[in-house]
Amino acid sequence: MATLHHSPFCPHSRFIRLALAEMGMEPELVEERPWERRDAFLLLNPAGSTPVLVEQTGLAIPGAAIIAEYLDETRGLGLSGRRLLPDTTTARVEVRRLLHWFLVKFDAEVTEYLVTEKIYKRFMKSAQGGGPPDMGAIRAARANVRYHLKYIGYLIGQRRWIAGDHLTYADLAAAAHLSCADYLGDVPWEEDEMARDWYARLKSRPSFRAILADRVPGMAPAAHYADLDF
Amino acid sequence: MATLHHSPFCPHSRFIRLALAEMGMEPELVEERPWERRDAFLLLNPAGSTPVLVEQTGLAIPGAAIIAEYLDETRGLGLSGRRLLPDTTTARVEVRRLLHWFLVKFDAEVTEYLVTEKIYKRFMKSAQGGGPPDMGAIRAARANVRYHLKYIGYLIGQRRWIAGDHLTYADLAAAAHLSCADYLGDVPWEEDEMARDWYARLKSRPSFRAILADRVPGMAPAAHYADLDF
Repeated sequence: MATLHHSPFCPHSRFIRLALAEMGMEPELVEERPWERRDAFLLLNPAGSTPVLVEQTGLAIPGAAIIAEYLDETRGLGLSGRRLLPDTTTARVEVRRLLHWFLVKFDAEVTEYLVTEKIYKRFMKSAQGGGPPDMGAIRAARANVRYHLKYIGYLIGQRRWIAGDHLTYADLAAAAHLSCADYLGDVPWEEDEMARDWYARLKSRPSFRAILADRVPGMAPAAHYADLDF
Repeated sequence: MATLHHSPFCPHSRFIRLALAEMGMEPELVEERPWERRDAFLLLNPAGSTPVLVEQTGLAIPGAAIIAEYLDETRGLGLSGRRLLPDTTTARVEVRRLLHWFLVKFDAEVTEYLVTEKIYKRFMKSAQGGGPPDMGAIRAARANVRYHLKYIGYLIGQRRWIAGDHLTYADLAAAAHLSCADYLGDVPWEEDEMARDWYARLKSRPSFRAILADRVPGMAPAAHYADLDF
């Protein structure tokens, strides 16, 4: 059995948990607090970030985008119609473009601000960067999330899923990032019905169940967070 | 012939120029100023960032990491021993890990600060974010570059190239990012001889020539920038 080193509100970890669940894999989960820079974890990933997938052979694969490529290369062909990175060149470019959009751009403009300021800082010591949230960063994230939501709505107006007519890594990465912001009540779903309907479809999938059950100690989720008909 | 939309001091564009040159491809170059958000360019890449590779068929491939995967899938097998993403699973994980390290982590901690503050801001109007450089951001980049240089030295102490015994995308991405910082005189090469020797080897390759000839109007490079025996 593979092991996934993750952090429950790390959006990149959530993306890989979703991808593994969609592929029918059930890894053992090991929770990391990346800011503690645990020695044994740094050996698995010198960058010190989650997620890291460790195969039974001992091979460590660090980073969400790297794990996604690895899973496709080692298990993708066996999934045939349910493959999360499609077969054709053009479709692969589009999935990777949007995967990168959410893992890098959305992360830098929205999720990293929200998760760091509202969640991680509660658990970090002051020497680790803990302390009260930076309201400027939170305001920036709340402003930025709106155009991303519009962009998802625009894409879903043209296709069944974000990157085409099949569910792909792009949907799972987008939904993983949005799920973190949604826990915190920072996604204005009322502004885009298409985006909301797409997210409701994803949220209803069995792969999403474990994520919707996660809780930040001492911090309840937004009222609609785990509601499938929000 | 393919076309590459690039910006001469965008480190991601430089990485793809190096990769194309190593693969023997000579694209037509179109210079973009990403901050101008040119409509025709946004159609090629809604994220508005360089580089974007456009094939003669019209297919647009946006983003350095996406282009690298695309080039490997469409041309990689023809390169045999000179392939920039290796054949074996374990080696591919290591190349992608380090590719991501430089394209995302080094970029966020070093290059984006330096290139934005010292170069782009000179050409941006104030409404586009132009103005005097933020010295705090530059100081952060100068502090951060030192541990990255040590990490390169550590890797080169164990292997001929950054990700193993062959030249890969990881070397080209690292060198592309460092070349931007080096133009600005912000790489303390004297602190790591192993890293300097590795960079000297890369800089001497024919693929590097075009990059070393680029100049920022009104801003000379550091004295050793184009010197192959620096």
